[in-house]
Amino acid sequence: MQQSRKRILIIGGVAGGASCAARLRRLCEHCEIVLIDKGEHVSFANCGLPYFVGDVIKEEQKLLVATPDLFQNRFNIEVLVQHEVTAIDRQAKTVSVTNLQDGSETEMHYDALVLSTGAKAIRPPLEGIDLPGIYVLRTIPDSHKLKAAAKNAKRAVIIGGGFIGLEMAENLAALNLQVTLIEMAKQVMPPLDPEMAAYVKSCLEENNIALRLGCAVESFQQMDNGLVVHYAGGQVETDIVLLAIGVTPASELAQQAGLEVGARGGIKVNKTMQTSDPSIWAVGDVVEVEDFVSKLKVTVPLAGPANRQGRIAAGAILETFNPALCRKLSFRGVQGTAVCQVFGLTIALTGTSEKALQRSGITNYQTIYLHPGHHVSYYPGAQPIHLKLIYRRTDGRVLGVQAVGKAGVTRRVDVIAMAIQMGATVFDLEESELCYAPQFGGAKDPVNMAGMIAANNLRHDLELADWHQLHDTSHVLLDVRSEGEFAGGHIDNAVNIPLEQLRKRIDELSSEEEIWLVCGVGQRAYYAVRLLMQRGFKVKVLSGGMQTYRSFVNAGLIDSQTITPAGGQ
Amino acid sequence: MQQSRKRILIIGGVAGGASCAARLRRLCEHCEIVLIDKGEHVSFANCGLPYFVGDVIKEEQKLLVATPDLFQNRFNIEVLVQHEVTAIDRQAKTVSVTNLQDGSETEMHYDALVLSTGAKAIRPPLEGIDLPGIYVLRTIPDSHKLKAAAKNAKRAVIIGGGFIGLEMAENLAALNLQVTLIEMAKQVMPPLDPEMAAYVKSCLEENNIALRLGCAVESFQQMDNGLVVHYAGGQVETDIVLLAIGVTPASELAQQAGLEVGARGGIKVNKTMQTSDPSIWAVGDVVEVEDFVSKLKVTVPLAGPANRQGRIAAGAILETFNPALCRKLSFRGVQGTAVCQVFGLTIALTGTSEKALQRSGITNYQTIYLHPGHHVSYYPGAQPIHLKLIYRRTDGRVLGVQAVGKAGVTRRVDVIAMAIQMGATVFDLEESELCYAPQFGGAKDPVNMAGMIAANNLRHDLELADWHQLHDTSHVLLDVRSEGEFAGGHIDNAVNIPLEQLRKRIDELSSEEEIWLVCGVGQRAYYAVRLLMQRGFKVKVLSGGMQTYRSFVNAGLIDSQTITPAGGQ
Repeated sequence: MQQSRKRILIIGGVAGGASCAARLRRLCEHCEIVLIDKGEHVSFANCGLPYFVGDVIKEEQKLLVATPDLFQNRFNIEVLVQHEVTAIDRQAKTVSVTNLQDGSETEMHYDALVLSTGAKAIRPPLEGIDLPGIYVLRTIPDSHKLKAAAKNAKRAVIIGGGFIGLEMAENLAALNLQVTLIEMAKQVMPPLDPEMAAYVKSCLEENNIALRLGCAVESFQQMDNGLVVHYAGGQVETDIVLLAIGVTPASELAQQAGLEVGARGGIKVNKTMQTSDPSIWAVGDVVEVEDFVSKLKVTVPLAGPANRQGRIAAGAILETFNPALCRKLSFRGVQGTAVCQVFGLTIALTGTSEKALQRSGITNYQTIYLHPGHHVSYYPGAQPIHLKLIYRRTDGRVLGVQAVGKAGVTRRVDVIAMAIQMGATVFDLEESELCYAPQFGGAKDPVNMAGMIAANNLRHDLELADWHQLHDTSHVLLDVRSEGEFAGGHIDNAVNIPLEQLRKRIDELSSEEEIWLVCGVGQRAYYAVRLLMQRGFKVKVLSGGMQTYRSFVNAGLIDSQTITPAGGQ
Repeated sequence: MQQSRKRILIIGGVAGGASCAARLRRLCEHCEIVLIDKGEHVSFANCGLPYFVGDVIKEEQKLLVATPDLFQNRFNIEVLVQHEVTAIDRQAKTVSVTNLQDGSETEMHYDALVLSTGAKAIRPPLEGIDLPGIYVLRTIPDSHKLKAAAKNAKRAVIIGGGFIGLEMAENLAALNLQVTLIEMAKQVMPPLDPEMAAYVKSCLEENNIALRLGCAVESFQQMDNGLVVHYAGGQVETDIVLLAIGVTPASELAQQAGLEVGARGGIKVNKTMQTSDPSIWAVGDVVEVEDFVSKLKVTVPLAGPANRQGRIAAGAILETFNPALCRKLSFRGVQGTAVCQVFGLTIALTGTSEKALQRSGITNYQTIYLHPGHHVSYYPGAQPIHLKLIYRRTDGRVLGVQAVGKAGVTRRVDVIAMAIQMGATVFDLEESELCYAPQFGGAKDPVNMAGMIAANNLRHDLELADWHQLHDTSHVLLDVRSEGEFAGGHIDNAVNIPLEQLRKRIDELSSEEEIWLVCGVGQRAYYAVRLLMQRGFKVKVLSGGMQTYRSFVNAGLIDSQTITPAGGQ
């Protein structure tokens, strides 16, 4: 098993790079492993930074998952922090390294090179972007600067309503700052479809976050008493600004070295994370990966895939040194499973979104909405989960899910993440057997219910109406809720026949026109659809009922003037 | 689509029966559906009864998921409560029904009959079993009786340490009763393997539940001041007794009618829940089903499968009336996914247990233990999840999981339940992409970690030692924790070389003898195994480390005298 002593250099010591280094050592005691990072720390908890700023995590020490000493003592891995690799000579298999503390330069040879250079915060070239008071949050030093600035500030503007933007809105609000969030898109949380993001919007508003959606920032201006952020159509004064627009692969080094890079700037890699140069691997936020569902090339800055990629690269590198070391691991692509919590609301998703499908021109899909409790209603404390499931119309293959709620959200999204990974259909969700006790779910879990609704649809027991066409097509809108519920607020032009009266009052309906059914969350409308279908009516359900209607209105997808009485539920 | 008006009788109106009735109506407006129950209620929340007794659920009304009126008005289903079916005439297709309120008897014809007669509490024929003060808990009237008795009681004995026994221990303790739990097995929660049940045992003891494990109850005796429960080796005085020994299928009616019944008393059914009589179906606790993993025939009293079986039977019945109504649904068997919470501890499991495999004589399996936090340690409030994963040795197919912890337990067990349903291997768990944010998990989720450990094992990067053989085989026991941890408590005869010193002190080890490695939870031992394996040592890891050792000691599987210093951790 003794090999010639090979040297593996890893550039970038967070997540993917650190995982790769540790895995290399576990698989090979005999190679030399050097981890190089231009920052002050390796293996720090990037995802914890918003909570460090917000004082939820109180000690910086906690963010250091592994120190250079631990790498040295436990793994016999040399760590060079504050060292920057400035160039790669692929012919000579060397890198040029600058010691950022003393400015000295050296050349280092490698047998294998791993690029884990990560992603960098996007800084658009706007007027005033370099003014003091404008921050990003990628590193521990970033977090110290932001934390210090927040202490003396009363107002903050966050630019970008994605994961970091939302987490920071909560954390800055917790420090008693008045927070304005500006987002260029018309919704927060761009990975979500807009009607699902509407729940997040409401939550932010309830927690006094001022939202400027659909607003592109144009410039920053220094004033005596802070900064002014100008955006198309308005301006807002603030003490500090956080740029959380997103990140882009930090692939300059790879590009300089002539490695192949994709359209979004991510380094191209094969299934074992090997780049276009067979002696160079790349892992983490800097690479381009395949979307597991859509098969499109994407860049996805997520810690989970980065860690797994690091492990996979380690095995692949050692296999090139010694084929007997093959571990038969390959990267399967990303599903985009992600979660964010803001003001007690959990937002989680996996697989593809409807808008991603539309962008790809894919139409062979169906969506359903449901709003089950996270556990049975008879046990105290049930919280609704707002859930959108997307599946392939031809065969029921699960394509994606988005869920928002105060409890039990990650559990259902994770179950569906596993289902998607395994190629499950909605018929599998329908028959899944999940944990049930009164505190933990229902005899029909929300996952079962999603599967049952979708499977009913694919078995043609339940035709679905398209919310987007609510006011654009000709149909009778029949609301089967109780008279009291109907009076409290209903869609314009809806007629009301409570489900319990439907059999007796069926003569009031015409079998000529298509009838769209709506109720509170979709269940009674489903019962009504079954009743009417069997009597020869052309009927469809508005999935998710008035609960979903409100999310479409709140997202601006349906005119808010269509509810009677105005402001009714 | 018009059919001749068929009559479907359903005997038993909870879970499976109620689901079947509602589904029948959704699929068929034209048939006559009659739901008959000998009790006072249909469709009540059986699983909520312990919490109703414990005043967590305060209103009885909440337990009534659907009333006879709702069945009538919403579904046009006739409900006969307090009516008992006393006989089935399969030739005539009639049942004899007794009205329990007035004693009158009628015959009712059926085109299809559904038996959803459930299960009944086991009452062993012990001396004194019928004394006042001895209760069971299956129905709402049962819960009223127990609740009233508990109000005037100071002491309770619960016989049986399964789901209901544990839930009732918590709920009676919450009512300030002093609770003794007597269980015939040497462990609580018989579906768990004993070393996993040991965590539950500790939790019960910490919450002042007196445990009598391995104690068979022999008789009950009335005293002036309560009851005495006699068991082999002792006795305990009490005010009330709850029998929670388990349930057995209530299949007498089916047996009288000559339907085929399995060895455990469950009615035999095919994949569409049809019995040996093609006009009779059976669903829920009264049927025998196939274990999805072991393929053995079992009876499993769980609400989730009962509900799904009811749906499936409904479609199958209608298909016999009209083949065009085929919904292509069939029951896939049960995985035994279950959960129980006691004093804040969640216990969840799915798939097979090690003892079930041993009972079946199956040896082609491997187990691992891990104790990850339910989220990253750097975010406040991380709680350990004690997890045991069982997989097939030949191909890595996941066979079962057991998990115990204060948070995040159902989520991981549900993900693995879906994995088992889809035939996943540990290599799939290794590569799964689950929700991660600091509050919700880790970049490597506990599911990933379980998969990685098992996959490492199957790739022969990590050989596993057998805890059961700890003191029965010849090996060097090497503890790689720090000197301080070692001094605080270690296994007898273990030698200590902290991981960080292992490379330098390797000459202290002999390559002649097998070395078993132990650490805190298994991670450092894994690092040490890799280091030593590559240097030619014969090494194995004691999976789960000292944490697992303590669970084996606590379960009585390893002598408690083997730790030095005594009482050390």
